Amino acid sequence: MLKNYEIRRYQMPEEEIKVLVKEKKKELALQQQLIKEHKLPVLVLLEGWGAAGKGTLIGNLIQELDPRFFKVINMDAPDEQEKRKPFLWRYMEQIPEAGKFVFWDSGWLEELADGVISGQMSDMALEERMRQIRIFDRQLKDNGYLVVKLFLQIPRDEQKRRMEALLDKKDTRWRVSARDIRQAKKRKDHERAYDRILEATNTGYVPWHIVDAMDKKQALLQTLHILTNQINQAVENARILPEILHKDYPLLKMPLLSNVPLDQEMSEEEYKVRLKELQKKLKKLHNRIYRLRIPVVIAYEGWDAAGKGGNIKRLASALDPRGFEVHPIASPEPHEKARHYLWRFYHRLPKDGHIAIFDRSWYGRVMVERLEGFCSENDWKRAYNEINEFEKELSDWGAVVIKFWVHIDKETQLARFTERANTPGKEWKITEEDWRNREKWDAYEQAVNEMIARTSTENAPWYIVQSNNKYYARIQAIEILIREIEKRVGREK
Amino acid sequence: MLKNYEIRRYQMPEEEIKVLVKEKKKELALQQQLIKEHKLPVLVLLEGWGAAGKGTLIGNLIQELDPRFFKVINMDAPDEQEKRKPFLWRYMEQIPEAGKFVFWDSGWLEELADGVISGQMSDMALEERMRQIRIFDRQLKDNGYLVVKLFLQIPRDEQKRRMEALLDKKDTRWRVSARDIRQAKKRKDHERAYDRILEATNTGYVPWHIVDAMDKKQALLQTLHILTNQINQAVENARILPEILHKDYPLLKMPLLSNVPLDQEMSEEEYKVRLKELQKKLKKLHNRIYRLRIPVVIAYEGWDAAGKGGNIKRLASALDPRGFEVHPIASPEPHEKARHYLWRFYHRLPKDGHIAIFDRSWYGRVMVERLEGFCSENDWKRAYNEINEFEKELSDWGAVVIKFWVHIDKETQLARFTERANTPGKEWKITEEDWRNREKWDAYEQAVNEMIARTSTENAPWYIVQSNNKYYARIQAIEILIREIEKRVGREK
Repeated sequence: MLKNYEIRRYQMPEEEIKVLVKEKKKELALQQQLIKEHKLPVLVLLEGWGAAGKGTLIGNLIQELDPRFFKVINMDAPDEQEKRKPFLWRYMEQIPEAGKFVFWDSGWLEELADGVISGQMSDMALEERMRQIRIFDRQLKDNGYLVVKLFLQIPRDEQKRRMEALLDKKDTRWRVSARDIRQAKKRKDHERAYDRILEATNTGYVPWHIVDAMDKKQALLQTLHILTNQINQAVENARILPEILHKDYPLLKMPLLSNVPLDQEMSEEEYKVRLKELQKKLKKLHNRIYRLRIPVVIAYEGWDAAGKGGNIKRLASALDPRGFEVHPIASPEPHEKARHYLWRFYHRLPKDGHIAIFDRSWYGRVMVERLEGFCSENDWKRAYNEINEFEKELSDWGAVVIKFWVHIDKETQLARFTERANTPGKEWKITEEDWRNREKWDAYEQAVNEMIARTSTENAPWYIVQSNNKYYARIQAIEILIREIEKRVGREK
Repeated sequence: MLKNYEIRRYQMPEEEIKVLVKEKKKELALQQQLIKEHKLPVLVLLEGWGAAGKGTLIGNLIQELDPRFFKVINMDAPDEQEKRKPFLWRYMEQIPEAGKFVFWDSGWLEELADGVISGQMSDMALEERMRQIRIFDRQLKDNGYLVVKLFLQIPRDEQKRRMEALLDKKDTRWRVSARDIRQAKKRKDHERAYDRILEATNTGYVPWHIVDAMDKKQALLQTLHILTNQINQAVENARILPEILHKDYPLLKMPLLSNVPLDQEMSEEEYKVRLKELQKKLKKLHNRIYRLRIPVVIAYEGWDAAGKGGNIKRLASALDPRGFEVHPIASPEPHEKARHYLWRFYHRLPKDGHIAIFDRSWYGRVMVERLEGFCSENDWKRAYNEINEFEKELSDWGAVVIKFWVHIDKETQLARFTERANTPGKEWKITEEDWRNREKWDAYEQAVNEMIARTSTENAPWYIVQSNNKYYARIQAIEILIREIEKRVGREK
């Protein structure tokens, strides 16, 4: 890609280029209002050779922009905390809000190239990460983002010449990083690696733009041109619905909710004995995953009054409190609503060796958001695949991913609602909304059946927890968790 | 403190202690509902000798709690990113939300003790940090938090014995950290350091509780006792208003807004020439503070249509976009409202060497929140001192702190409002709310005068930017910023 990219040189005197640059800068400034109106988030990733002029270029791009509407992020190599999260986590953290610009001063390119060149990243790991990037780009695009990827190209001797000039002066020396020097020294290796990575992440929905950076004015004009064009295009195409993909993740065969028996019984005595045993076992396993640095992600969904809270409590109380966190998920706050709907869940992912328990989850998209019309039909139909991709990324990262549907029948719910409403000290647990949701039981049941059918994957299975008898359900959930963790770490002898 | 603490041993058979523990655990579980109702945030800091049983104790405390309402945070030594923020930043990040528990498994004690013992922290630095902790504790308390600080005490040989037992077994060895070993080796030094720090941070509003941890059951009962008592007390005293402090920060003498002349003139030509010069100068200074790792915090406040946005833009466009961020401040989101009102500003502090520009700021407390009744009278009256303390902490950290009041007169505002309303493409800039605020001009003017008078400190001065002529105002703001930075780094030769 870097060898035979299309050169878009402007054949005109420098004076004319200056005039054009000025015009384009003004156009970009005016487009701000446009992206604000259309709530378009714009992510600009600027990669390129060291000393190609990324910093100066960004400085020029933003000159006429309102600084309240853009952010420039300098992506360094990941630190120790970031290494304990999925590869794309720190990038996902930094995506723009609706109506704003984010400029990344370099992104994942050098991280990957460096991994490959140093031999610390296997070929398979590289392929996996590149696949994740393609998914990341597509998901952003499908969720209304404009992603513009640019690579500033300069030939080898030009890079050498510029770096020497920078290193020569005391005032500019600090601008050359150890990374830049490493990159320049192994230019050939980097060319190969960059080329491979650019090719693999050059997609129809988010292509790479190679910018010829020999001449700074030319590079600026090219970039302004690309950027303003892309914004107009994105606004124009905003109403075109993205495709709904069904990728062939191997799905597990799941029963319909109506076919799940709910007549299990368990006495309090039996429950207490079993619980104690299982909690002891889980405690040991928690120690082991902590030491092995295996992350665990558990999502709880279920009917109102099915006993999610109590179930989570029994599970959690076996865990070392320093190693887990429960995230109650309510409706998104403004800063969350302004981003990709999976953002707030990414944000709450555990570090490796830790456990995150989500009390309601990203499945809201295909349940409440679908049924209450909080998102479009295209949005929730697309979500099955997006969620499968998200969970695949988690398990590729090494996580144990488990999803519980805490299930009861309609009569049991009524009995529990009524009991709550009539018990002093429990009234607060039952609201008007609960009764309203109950009226939509059938619609929910259909949605849940569809959700379970479409997102039960080998690596992130759904488990239907039979919760008419709460004791039974609690034991069941802990047993499942133990089994799933043991699958990963092996059984304790 | 550690030598002659009051021992609260329960003189009763172990069986009775077990019964009491059970009761107290139940009480704590019930109090959850209480703290939820009263929106009481509860912060429990657990310090103590290595192997004193902090982890086990926390595990016991939370056993009956709903895991959706507590978090356990394990505070390690600060990492590289955290070291680039103010000392208390990472602690402030982890304060609880209203109605929830947060348990800190150790906090700043070892960080300070270690600094002193290793000689890396000067006596003065230690004193400064301890002062900051006292302020932190008081501010939390005054803002409706319950803070409970506990220290688990065991004698020297007991600690040695326990650590040896832990190190002896493969399964428990990992639980002894390098920090624990260092601490045990230098027990005497640590005793001295801990004692000094505990004394200095043992305040009337947030005292230390020394827990005798020789016997685990006893320690658990003592802790439960302290915690449940403190919660009851906090709820009972919730309506008692905190004192309003006026600490004698050296205040600068400031003029009343009505005495500030606004008849400056500046032509577009002069402006353009001056701006170019100043931006060049500022650019160089930005480089220097980046290299010297000096953080800069700028707060912009001002009348609607005074030209804040344009002013910020001219200032920002001289800066390297990788080294600054503009934070537009709107009304707080739910997760922000659920915490200390300064939390969201702490959260947005720059790392050292970077510049944060706040477009509206923490001064909302004594302006809009005061005038619209979004906080109580006691709240905003207390805020002057709290803000002075906050800004003092910033400058102790090494930050350049500047506050701009962008000022115009009433007639100019009317002219600008009218122009905006009548100019196609600018109507969106003027809202009903702007007109409503304008009606309250006099009340705002009084509040602003009071704010400026009470929070213009040597280390964080207010500057009234005269903005009837926007050109003049922009030049003025950049000049002030340059001067303030030069005060810190010296003039460029």
